[in-house]
Amino acid sequence: MIIDCHGHYTTAPKALEQWRKAQIDNLATPELGPRVADLRISDDELRESIENNQLRLMRERGSDLTIFSPRASFMAHHIGDFNTSSTWAGICNELCHRVSQLFPEHFIGAAMLPQSPGVDPRSCIPELERCVKDYGFVGINLNPDPSGGHWKEPPLTDRWWYPVYEKMVEYDIPAMVHVSTSCNACFHTTGAHYLNADTTAFMQCLTGDLFKEFPTLKFVIPHGGGAVPYHWGRFRGLAQELKKPLLQEHLLGNIYFDTCVYHQPGIDLLTRVIPVDNILFASEMIGAVRGIDPLTGHHYDDTRRYVEVAAIDPQQRAKIYEHNARRVYPRLDAALKARGL
Amino acid sequence: MIIDCHGHYTTAPKALEQWRKAQIDNLATPELGPRVADLRISDDELRESIENNQLRLMRERGSDLTIFSPRASFMAHHIGDFNTSSTWAGICNELCHRVSQLFPEHFIGAAMLPQSPGVDPRSCIPELERCVKDYGFVGINLNPDPSGGHWKEPPLTDRWWYPVYEKMVEYDIPAMVHVSTSCNACFHTTGAHYLNADTTAFMQCLTGDLFKEFPTLKFVIPHGGGAVPYHWGRFRGLAQELKKPLLQEHLLGNIYFDTCVYHQPGIDLLTRVIPVDNILFASEMIGAVRGIDPLTGHHYDDTRRYVEVAAIDPQQRAKIYEHNARRVYPRLDAALKARGL
Repeated sequence: MIIDCHGHYTTAPKALEQWRKAQIDNLATPELGPRVADLRISDDELRESIENNQLRLMRERGSDLTIFSPRASFMAHHIGDFNTSSTWAGICNELCHRVSQLFPEHFIGAAMLPQSPGVDPRSCIPELERCVKDYGFVGINLNPDPSGGHWKEPPLTDRWWYPVYEKMVEYDIPAMVHVSTSCNACFHTTGAHYLNADTTAFMQCLTGDLFKEFPTLKFVIPHGGGAVPYHWGRFRGLAQELKKPLLQEHLLGNIYFDTCVYHQPGIDLLTRVIPVDNILFASEMIGAVRGIDPLTGHHYDDTRRYVEVAAIDPQQRAKIYEHNARRVYPRLDAALKARGL
Repeated sequence: MIIDCHGHYTTAPKALEQWRKAQIDNLATPELGPRVADLRISDDELRESIENNQLRLMRERGSDLTIFSPRASFMAHHIGDFNTSSTWAGICNELCHRVSQLFPEHFIGAAMLPQSPGVDPRSCIPELERCVKDYGFVGINLNPDPSGGHWKEPPLTDRWWYPVYEKMVEYDIPAMVHVSTSCNACFHTTGAHYLNADTTAFMQCLTGDLFKEFPTLKFVIPHGGGAVPYHWGRFRGLAQELKKPLLQEHLLGNIYFDTCVYHQPGIDLLTRVIPVDNILFASEMIGAVRGIDPLTGHHYDDTRRYVEVAAIDPQQRAKIYEHNARRVYPRLDAALKARGL
């Protein structure tokens, strides 16, 4: 089985974007803004948006199941206030839930949180609980920078975030550390902000001792870990300077990297440097980079092709494709076992 | 000949740090603050600080000449105002100049600029001119984020920066794009902010058309280009989405990466992915990562060892060690030729 741990609903029907636009247009006058009930998307529309896109590509590329969350760049936690984000997260999570109900063999949900700049993350708990209990979601996306490129929240090691971690531990769900749209002109969203956030989150964990406080807390750092594997020697050396344990012991019991690295040399480095137990297959398909690589004739984001030819053995590949995801997302494993898989 | 294009004066005598501390303590009362003349460092002290540190390691490791600039993390452009930075840059550049006079075969200067948040970069021109004309410096360090991790300046492609570029083109000097200390708690200086800035600067150039405006402008992106080579497929794909030319044509006539990547797999990826003509040898020795790698028994920042065994031929290695630096830093080449080298 091939599990893609990093999929977003980037192909939702246009009505969703229109609803969001109306919400934003009425930020100052929410009483005039759209109600949740104003958004009507039929099951047929959902089916079509998935069958012609993600599911078609999953079949072509041979992946079986995608951990599916709302479109990352559309989370835009910096817009409006907590109520804005709360309503928007509720809508987006419900759509992912409906997709997982329509295609239960192929999609299982991960939640967007209703984060808002400066607002206590405790406010995200009700939506998190709803997604886990009512929707059967198996993970969350946690945005370390709800300001959208201004980085005004404390580091992930700060007690500020602990209420979310306590719930994650209670439910045994990991967080993918994933920012959203940058509204800082310096940072291109998918070409700088995403990768920078991955590197930043890893280094925050390196300097702290978060996993001593929460030994079972798990983070998936997407986009192949940003700059981290490429600079693994630098990070090993920085841990040494900071008198931290070896990274294997200090962080790799809790931090995992996905395979969203869009060329062969990158995946080769990732699998050479990072222990195979810490790598989870992912593509973030129909995401930041949708084109076809003229050097290969294949889509940049068809990451399975890179993993297929990486210098690892079949057992290691099976860990990356399936077993690691089932270990890191225990609720996914339970859901699969319930289906006899 | 082996030229290390990325060295900072991280080992300056303590008096320098004390002077800076006094300057900072008197930010609000500069009339009480230290005068430039209060800083007294003898040639013997300079000699000792270099002979026992950089020069000793250069001899051990076999590099011949270092392009030497003030300590990056100490630039701290976010502190005080333009006058603060101007005085500080003047002092730091003069020390690097004196080192280059004491060890003319082994050190040649690159300038720190007196940048200050929100201040027109035109204000940096007099110091730049002094360093080039009076000191024979061959390059500059340009900080894309003088706010120190808050990223409040416009992107490098903005006309805001053009006065500096015009001078760079006039003098035919490249800029190493190098941030300084982060005062944003989210970003560890050397483990996140430096690498993020490298990625950010590259992506700013990718989205813009700066090198159409300035065809001879040259940027060296340090720390192996941040996350860029590891995600080269992503950047190729993003350029394609943005309808930009191939990266080779769009950016690689003007952008170069150094070899400050502190493990073998990173250097192997760099030399596999980035054309050899765009890679310049560097170590940033006695910098962020000063320890010995227990896996190799050698210093993490002894980057020559990695380049020595990378899968490139001797001619390619000679480009990385010498010829590319002489091409990217024409004033360095001229200085060497004047010495018959």
